[in-house]
Parts: sequence; structure tokens; C-alpha cells
Amino acid sequence: MTSPLDWIREAASARADAGLTRRLVPTKAHDVVDLAGNDYLGLRHHPAVVAGAVAAVETYGTGAGASRLVTGTLDVHEELEAALAALTGAPSALVLSSGYAANLAALTTLADAGTLVVSDEHAHASLIDGCRLSRAAVSVSRHNDLEHVAELLARRDTPRAVVVAESVYSVLGDAAPVEDLVALTAEAGALLVVDEAHALGVVGPGGAGLVAAAGASGAEHVVVTTTLSKSLAAQGGVVLASPDVRDHLVNTARPFIYDTGLAPGSAGAALAALGVLREHPELPARLHANAARLAETCGVAAPDGAVMSVPMPGPHETVEAVERAAALGVRVGAFRPPSTPDGSSRLRITAHADHTDHDLDRACAVLAELVPSQA
Amino acid sequence: MTSPLDWIREAASARADAGLTRRLVPTKAHDVVDLAGNDYLGLRHHPAVVAGAVAAVETYGTGAGASRLVTGTLDVHEELEAALAALTGAPSALVLSSGYAANLAALTTLADAGTLVVSDEHAHASLIDGCRLSRAAVSVSRHNDLEHVAELLARRDTPRAVVVAESVYSVLGDAAPVEDLVALTAEAGALLVVDEAHALGVVGPGGAGLVAAAGASGAEHVVVTTTLSKSLAAQGGVVLASPDVRDHLVNTARPFIYDTGLAPGSAGAALAALGVLREHPELPARLHANAARLAETCGVAAPDGAVMSVPMPGPHETVEAVERAAALGVRVGAFRPPSTPDGSSRLRITAHADHTDHDLDRACAVLAELVPSQA
Ligand SMILES: Cc1ncc(COP(=O)(O)O)c(C=O)c1O
Ligand SMILES: Cc1ncc(COP(=O)(O)O)c(C=O)c1O
Repeated sequence: MTSPLDWIREAASARADAGLTRRLVPTKAHDVVDLAGNDYLGLRHHPAVVAGAVAAVETYGTGAGASRLVTGTLDVHEELEAALAALTGAPSALVLSSGYAANLAALTTLADAGTLVVSDEHAHASLIDGCRLSRAAVSVSRHNDLEHVAELLARRDTPRAVVVAESVYSVLGDAAPVEDLVALTAEAGALLVVDEAHALGVVGPGGAGLVAAAGASGAEHVVVTTTLSKSLAAQGGVVLASPDVRDHLVNTARPFIYDTGLAPGSAGAALAALGVLREHPELPARLHANAARLAETCGVAAPDGAVMSVPMPGPHETVEAVERAAALGVRVGAFRPPSTPDGSSRLRITAHADHTDHDLDRACAVLAELVPSQA
Repeated sequence: MTSPLDWIREAASARADAGLTRRLVPTKAHDVVDLAGNDYLGLRHHPAVVAGAVAAVETYGTGAGASRLVTGTLDVHEELEAALAALTGAPSALVLSSGYAANLAALTTLADAGTLVVSDEHAHASLIDGCRLSRAAVSVSRHNDLEHVAELLARRDTPRAVVVAESVYSVLGDAAPVEDLVALTAEAGALLVVDEAHALGVVGPGGAGLVAAAGASGAEHVVVTTTLSKSLAAQGGVVLASPDVRDHLVNTARPFIYDTGLAPGSAGAALAALGVLREHPELPARLHANAARLAETCGVAAPDGAVMSVPMPGPHETVEAVERAAALGVRVGAFRPPSTPDGSSRLRITAHADHTDHDLDRACAVLAELVPSQA
């Protein structure tokens, strides 16, 4: 007897044989130092952020109840959009239900069959899926290689072009040459889509990101996407761009039009997190100091943002290291194929602004034992 | 001087000329009867649902902080998955950040280049985008036409096949022949993906949906997707399927792996909404009674679920009717191209379980004036 699930079961066995099976394990709120999550400013339990979420739920209810285009646009969405534009200097902002949705929305509406997309080889899955859905021709550029980007743009035979990058990359944690990309795309008549998921709240003036640091927030050809789920401690995504691009998304982006508006509680939390960041401009600097100490212990360079990537011999060793760290009260992340751009396995270690010296003492003692180059 | 935004501005003018420009207008919480949103059970402001959201935010924080595969799986996600499986009778459940993401995740992992997808012509944008991303060959079947589905399946030359339907359709509000689709796909060795976004909480035993009503929740070849953002008053999506399919998604679905886990507050709200539904099994029946009364006033047949679709002469008339209704204290939705499967314009009217007789008196008085067939 064959079943339409046979191929799924075969794929599962192959994964198990390769040591690549993933399982979901609930994270318990006990006494551990978290070096795995993306709550870079440590705001998920901040009283003001919790209060922002609770107030929004009490005012607007637990869900938006409809697409933003029907009755799902609430004052809290507009306040959040204004606050995001104010922090980053972008001319306008459009909030969506996730960072994934923001990337799908931006790419499916800014690129089409008449567009060449030049996408960095380390681009996030959501950017890649956006490119695929757009029906554009896609050329993958070597990681952070400006000359390669220029070459691919020069060779194009399409009327339009879009360059795709992250400002701080999610896996290796390195920064893109944003200022150069802004200039290069301006010269080539291309749009530049920059995902600042790991940069917002982390780098740039007051945590405004690397496009703001490059003075390019107002540039008409630059479109920034980011998530509300990392340093802003909530859920949701945003596209920061000119009002014309915002209108274009409102009218044509399927992952915006056919999706329920962001939950009021998540919008209220992100709005409150922006308020905390404004009142505590020292948070990103504290994060960088913590990152530098962790990087030194792991024998890697201090990262541009909050993310460090520590090479490991293979997937089994990586899983083992994560488990040993957990047993010793330190949570670190593992990146194994297919999550790594180059097929290798790594520990992924994130710094957080709210870690105390005591937390870091504990974390560094454990890391010093686990990381191969320190052995 | 040309700008890379020129084509966007040209598209905007064309839209304006056709009367199809969409704008976002914040919905204010004032004294209106809402016949536009998808909060079918009226639970967005229910004290128990608000309390569920608040308790989850206080316990788990304002965001999940990471992918479900890193540290973003929380007890509240597993409790919600167990409650969704219990209501629907599905063997297992996987919660994602939106219903859109759930459909992308299901289709991109259950269909591939060796699959024929037979998709109903009224399928939601998120199902269509999932099909496109999957790289499968897609054949569109005539709406609710079983013979056409069978014919397309019989003609296939791919090793695998997936049939895609909604159990209650989002625009016209009509139901699919779910029991027949379950039998037909079983016979053809195909998987059946059924989106119950407009059915969960609305139809079937205790609001369990039409797959449960067909006694097919445990069928290995049936995969149900749905949203937490309509009758469950929150945000999020879910895939209900066999444990093997769930494992397959956990290991291979990009919109799950590379996406931050659902915000705890949204998970807590949906979990509490399921509790209210369990304690008030009369809610779906109340919804249907309200729907029948609205349908009679609009001169359309009583709907299978909560959604009625009232044909209008054109997009301008539709917008005008929506505005007149709003001025008279009744909020109705408009579906204009490209949101309607057949390119026509419609009022979209939704029934809600929490509307009182007084609300319906007001609503029906206004609708009687607006709907063309009543003039
Ligand atoms: C670079 C990047 N872009 C987008 C996303 C998606 O954001 P979200 O989790 O809000 O969907 C992520 C991670 O989650 C990311 O790392
Ligand atoms: C049939 C259908 N499927 C999926 C979705 C997407 O769900 P969500 O809004 O949770 O992304 C919707 C509407 O929003 C829908 O109507």
C-alpha cells in the first residue's frame, strides 16, 4: 500500500540519518543566560513594553479583526508607523503582520518579470521567497561584493533593477557596505531594498539602523524593511519608504491586502519599545560592550551588530555544544544546514543589552569550555 | 530625469482613473454596527479573551523573541496547539505567525516540482502564493466543480498531486463539497489541503469546521490550514495534520523556520477564545440566525458561514454604498478588483454572534436602502 505521505516519511529518515532532524522544545522561564534569542535590547519583559501591549489590547481588542484595508487599520498602527518613521528618518512606514510578510510585500511589488533582482548570497529566506514570488530574473551576488553587484547590474537587459541586501546579516552578523550600495544603485537607476531586521535598535544613530547612518533614509530609491520581533520585542514587520512606494504596497501587495492587520497588542508593544529606546539611548552601546566581551571569549571578531557566528566542526558537535551549554545554564543557538548560507554548522550567539556583568561571567565561563578554538 | 519610481507613479494614475485606489482609514471605536470585520464570534473585546492575552504577555513577555526552532517555542504555543487539535479532532497542530504563513508553509512543503496542484479558482491569495512558491505545476479547477477536479487529477503525469480548496470561501461565502473532496482525493492518491479560515468557530460540530463535520479530521491525506485572526479574535495561523506532516513542516517549511514565533499575547488570546467557544457552544448558532436575517434583507440566500456577498453594479457604486452605510452607522466591506475572483464588485457583509436584535434592526434598516435589488 502506498500513501501520499510516503515521500515525506522517506525525507524524514534521510534527515535523521544525517543528524539534521529538528524538534520543537518549549523554552522555560528559568534561570538561564539567553544568548540565543533576538530580543537584543532585552525588552520583552520590560514593564513599559508589557504595559504598552496590555493597554493596546484593552483599547483595541485582541485582534485587528480584518485586513488593514477593510476595518483592520487602527490608530495604534498609525502611531507605530509615525514612530518608526521618526526613529529612522524614513518619509513613511507601512506595518505588516511579520517581517517575513514585509519582505514578501516589498519584493513582489517592487520587482516583476521586467526586473533584474541582484540579491546577496547571504540574503534571508524571506527575501529569497519574495524574489521567487515576484517572477523577476534573479542574479545572486557574492556576499558583500560591490564590484560583483555593479557588474551584474551593468550586464542587465531588463528595464528595471532592484538590489537586495541586509544591513546586518542574520547568520554571520556582518554589516553590508550600505553607503556604497546606496550610491551604486542611485547611479545604476536601480532600487535598493535593505532588510534591517538585525540592525534596528542595534546600530546607527539612536538605533536607527545603517541606512540612517549612511544618511540615506530619505533617498527615493531606497526601501528599508525590518521586523518588530527582534529588538522591538514584539511581532510584526514594516516597510520604510517614500509615500509613493507605501501607496503602491497598499494597493498591490498581496501579503498586505489579503492578510489580517497586526494584532493591537504587538503594535502597542513595539510602540512602547520605541519609547524605551528613545529614553535610553545608551541601550545599543551597552549591547555592543556585551557583544565585544562575548566575542573575545569565543575567539571571534567583535560583531557589527549583536550576532556572532562561531564555526563548529559539524552538525552533531554543534547540537552537543548547545546541549552542554543548556545543562550549564547558558542558551546558545545552533545553525545547521539548510539554515547556513555556506552549508557549514555554527553556534549562533547573540548579545543582549540587559545582561549584567554577572550574567556575562557565567556565560563566558561556559563558552570558554565549549568553543573549539579555545580548547 | 527618470526615476526608478516612475512606473509606480504611472500605475498609481491608472488606478486612480479606474476608481480603484485604496486608502487606509483608521477604524474608530464608536457606535457603529460592524458588518465588515471577520471577528465572527465577537470575541475581540470579550473579557476572558482580553484576560488570556494579558496573562500570556505577563508570563511570557511581549514577543516570542526567536524562531520556534531556536528559543521561540513557549508553553502557550503547545497549549494552543493541543486545544486546536482537540476542537477539530486533528491528530496534531502547528501554530505559525499568520494564516498567510500557514498556507505558504503547507503548500511549499507538500507540493514540489513533481506535484500537480489542482486549486479551486476562488482560492485565497495566500493559497495561490503558496502554490507559486512551491514550483509545482498548477491547474485551476472551476469553482466547486468536483468533476473538473477529478478530470484534472486523472490527466496528471506527476508522481504526486495536491488538491486545494477552502471549506467556506472568503469572498462568496459558499461552502465546498468537503466530504466528496476527501473521498475523491483518497481514491486518486492525492493530498487535500483545506483552508478553514472562514469555517473554524463558525460551522461544523462545536465550530470545528467542515473537515470535522465530514468526519475526516483524522484522515492521513487531509491537511487543514486556518487562521487565528477571524473567529478566534487574535492573530496567527495553524496547520492541522498528521504528526508526520507536522514534523515535515517543522523541518522544511521556510515560513515557519525563518519566522519569529507567534506573539505570546496572540497565542493566549486564541487559546482563551477556544475556551469561550467550548463554554458557549450556542455561539455559532446565534451567528447563523443573525446571518439569515441579514441575508433576507439583502435579498441573497442565507450563507453557509458568516459571509454574504451582495453584487453591485461597479466599483464606484460599491464605494459610495460603503460610505453611505458608514454615515448611517453601519460598517460594510467592499470587494473590488483585484480582490474578487470574477472581477466584479460586491458588498461583503459579515454576520457576528454578538450582534443584538437592536444592532440588527439598525443594520437592516440601512441595508434595505443600499442594496440595489431592494430599490
Ligand atoms: C534578516 C531577517 N529578515 C526577516 C526576518 C523575518 O522577520 P519576522 O520574524 O518578523 O517574520 C528575519 C527573522 O526572523 C530575519 O532574520
Ligand atoms: C481564506 C483565507 N485564508 C487565509 C487568510 C490569511 O489569514 P491571516 O489573516 O491570518 O494571515 C485569509 C484572510 O485573511 C483568508 O480569508
